[in-house]
Amino acid sequence: MKINTKEILERIRTQTPVIHHLTNWVTIYDCAQIVKTLGASPVMAHAKEEVGEMAGIASALVLNIGTLTVEFVEAMKIAARQANQKGIPVVLDVCGAGATKLRDQKCQELLETVKIDIVKGNVSEIARIAGENVRTRGVDAVSVERNLVELARKLAGKKKCVVVITGREDIVTDDEETFLVRNGHPLMTCVVGTGCMAASVIGTFAAVEKNLVRAAVAALVCFEVAAECAAKKVAGPATFKEALFDNLYCLDARTVDRLKNVHTVSTLRKIK
Amino acid sequence: MKINTKEILERIRTQTPVIHHLTNWVTIYDCAQIVKTLGASPVMAHAKEEVGEMAGIASALVLNIGTLTVEFVEAMKIAARQANQKGIPVVLDVCGAGATKLRDQKCQELLETVKIDIVKGNVSEIARIAGENVRTRGVDAVSVERNLVELARKLAGKKKCVVVITGREDIVTDDEETFLVRNGHPLMTCVVGTGCMAASVIGTFAAVEKNLVRAAVAALVCFEVAAECAAKKVAGPATFKEALFDNLYCLDARTVDRLKNVHTVSTLRKIK
Amino acid sequence: MKINTKEILERIRTQTPVIHHLTNWVTIYDCAQIVKTLGASPVMAHAKEEVGEMAGIASALVLNIGTLTVEFVEAMKIAARQANQKGIPVVLDVCGAGATKLRDQKCQELLETVKIDIVKGNVSEIARIAGENVRTRGVDAVSVERNLVELARKLAGKKKCVVVITGREDIVTDDEETFLVRNGHPLMTCVVGTGCMAASVIGTFAAVEKNLVRAAVAALVCFEVAAECAAKKVAGPATFKEALFDNLYCLDARTVDRLKNVHTVSTLRKIK
Repeated sequence: MKINTKEILERIRTQTPVIHHLTNWVTIYDCAQIVKTLGASPVMAHAKEEVGEMAGIASALVLNIGTLTVEFVEAMKIAARQANQKGIPVVLDVCGAGATKLRDQKCQELLETVKIDIVKGNVSEIARIAGENVRTRGVDAVSVERNLVELARKLAGKKKCVVVITGREDIVTDDEETFLVRNGHPLMTCVVGTGCMAASVIGTFAAVEKNLVRAAVAALVCFEVAAECAAKKVAGPATFKEALFDNLYCLDARTVDRLKNVHTVSTLRKIK
Repeated sequence: MKINTKEILERIRTQTPVIHHLTNWVTIYDCAQIVKTLGASPVMAHAKEEVGEMAGIASALVLNIGTLTVEFVEAMKIAARQANQKGIPVVLDVCGAGATKLRDQKCQELLETVKIDIVKGNVSEIARIAGENVRTRGVDAVSVERNLVELARKLAGKKKCVVVITGREDIVTDDEETFLVRNGHPLMTCVVGTGCMAASVIGTFAAVEKNLVRAAVAALVCFEVAAECAAKKVAGPATFKEALFDNLYCLDARTVDRLKNVHTVSTLRKIK
Repeated sequence: MKINTKEILERIRTQTPVIHHLTNWVTIYDCAQIVKTLGASPVMAHAKEEVGEMAGIASALVLNIGTLTVEFVEAMKIAARQANQKGIPVVLDVCGAGATKLRDQKCQELLETVKIDIVKGNVSEIARIAGENVRTRGVDAVSVERNLVELARKLAGKKKCVVVITGREDIVTDDEETFLVRNGHPLMTCVVGTGCMAASVIGTFAAVEKNLVRAAVAALVCFEVAAECAAKKVAGPATFKEALFDNLYCLDARTVDRLKNVHTVSTLRKIK
C-alpha cells in the first residue's frame, strides 16, 4: 500500500480548501497559520449565529476543546451538524480530556450528538474517551504497546471513525487499517500547540482526501518530517517552531519520501 | 503632493499614542505587537463595562470583526460612540465580510449607528460592504481596474469616510483624493494577520495625523516597505513575519523614501 | 542570604508542576509557552464549570486581568478559592489597573474575596492598587525611589502577601524582606507580554518554592538574565523575543550566577 503524500499535498495547494475551526484561544493563531502554511485557507468563526453558514462554505471542520465553555460546545454542535449534512469531514481534538468532568462530558456529548470523522488525542486523552484504563505514560516513554493499538481500534470500530493517538509513535486506525507514524522530533513536546496544529493539519489533508486514514497518515508524516528538518539547526523551542513552519511551507516530495517512517500494524512492515 | 511619512512616524514614536482595539482572537497578539513595534501603546480591552472609558484615554480606535459575536459588536458600538464624542478616528476592518449574513449585517449596523472614519478590507469584503458586484479576483491578479477605484470612491463619498482596499495594489480614497500604494510582497499573503495588522498600523498613523487619507497611505507604505525589506533573506513565512516586525521597528526615513511606490489616481503620477 | 536560583529551576524541570492560568487573550500563548519553556506544564482553562477542578490538579494559579470581563473574574474567584483551599500559591497580575474603574474595582474584589499570595504589576498599577499617589514614571526613568519600596512594603504588610513591582529595577517584598532585581534589558519594553510572562514565570517558581519572596526573585532573575543573553545579537523585538525563549530554555546555573544582579534593600548590598 502506498500513501501518496505528495499528491495529497499538491491537491491542498491547488484547491486551497477552507478549513473551519472552533478551537481554543491559546493556539488559535498557530492553527490558522499552519493551515495557511500548507496552502489552504483557515476560518476561525465561533458565533452560534454564523458557524453553520461558515461550515457550509468549508471543506473540513476542526473542533478543539482546549478552552471550552458550555456555550462554545453548543456552537460546535451547530457547525458539526452542518458539516455532517454537507458531508465534509469533522475532526475532534479531545484536548485535555480526562482533566475535568466538563471535558469528559462534553467530548461524549459531541461524539453522541454529531458525527465525528476523526478523533485525535494523546494516549491519556484517547484512553479516557474510550472509557478504559491504560498506563498513560507508555507511548511517550518507549514504543507503542499492542494494547494501545487495540484501544484505538476498538474506539474506531465503536464510533465508526478514524482514531489518531499522537505520541513518539502515532497510531492511526479506522479499525480495518492501522498505521504507525514514526516521524517527529522530541522538541515538538517543548512547543505549546503542536498537538492542536497536528489536528489542523489532519483536517486540511482530510479536506482533499476521502480515505481519512490515509489523509491522517499523510498529514502526520508531512508535519513531522517538517519538524525533523526544522530540528537540524535550532537554538531552542522558539527557533524550532519558526523553522517548523518554514520547513512545512517549503516541503517537497523528495524530502517526504526520504524521511517518511510509516508502518502497517498487521505486519509492522515499513511502507515505501 | 508629498506625504511626509517619516514625519508622521516620528510623531508616533514621540507621542506614543494609545490605540484601543476590539479585535479578533486569532491575530490579537500581532495587532498589539505591531502597534508597540511602531512605538505606540496598544490596549485590547473588550468588556462592555470599560470599553467606553478605555476609548476615552485612547487616540484611535480599531475595530475588527474577524471573530465577532453579537455581544462583542455591542461593545464595539459603545467604544465607537465614545471615540466619536472625543473626536478620535475609528478604523473598521470588515474582516470576512461577505462570508456570512451575520458579518454583513453587523458591518452595516456599525456603519449606520456610529461614525466610522476609515473602512478597510480586501476587494471582496469592500465590494460586499458597498453592496455591489465586482470581479473579486481582479486586484490580486493583475492591476487595479478603474471600476474598483470607482467602487471605493463611491463608498467613501456615501459614508463620508476613507476607504482602503488592500491587495497587490492598495487603494486609499476619501472620494476627493485617491492613491494607489504599490509596495508590499507576495509573502504577506502567506502570513495570517497581515490584513489585521495593516488596520492596526493605519489606526496608529491616524492617531497622530488628521488627514486620514494621508495617514492611511503613509501607514501602508511603512508596513509594506518593511515587508519588502523583510522578504530579502527569509526561509519561509515564519522567518518573514519575524523580519517584518524587526524591519518595521528599525524603519528609517531613507529606506521609506527609496522604496515608496505611491501614485495619485487622477494622473497616475508617482509621488516623490 | 543566598537565593538558590539554580536549585529552584532544577526542581521545576524535575517536578514539571501544572500551572493553571486564567489570563488575557492577547498574551495567552506566550504565557503558556514560557511555562512550558521552563519545563513545567501550563493549563489555560477558564470555564466556571471546570476551573475549580483544574486548580485542584495544579501547583500554582496565575490570574491576569488584561482582558477581563465580569464573568471571567467570577471564574477567577472560583479557581482561587480552590487554590486557597488546596494551599497552592495564587499570583495576581493587576495588568492595566488604574486605566478603568472596572479594573480597579475587580482587583479590589479579588484581593478582598480570595487570598492572593503574590500581587504583581508595574509601578502605576501597584500604586493604584495601594490607593496612593506616586509619580508613576519614576521607576522606569531613573532608579528605584525609596517611597516606591515603602509603597510596596506597606501593601505587602496590609494584604499579607508578596508584592512585585516590575520596572528597570524590580522590587520584591513581603514587608519583612525586600529585594531589588537589576537584571533585564530595555528591549523587553518593546515586546507585548513580557509583563504577563513575568507573572507566569513567578507562578512557576512559586509552585516549587515555599518562600514566595525568594521564588519571585529567582523567577525574575532567570527571566531577565535570559533577556540579557537574548539581547546580544538581535535585529529587533521579534528576534529578541524568540531568543528570549530559547535562552530561557537553555539557561544554565553558571550564566545565572555570573549575571545575577540582586540587592537587599536594607543594606543595598549585592547578593552573591
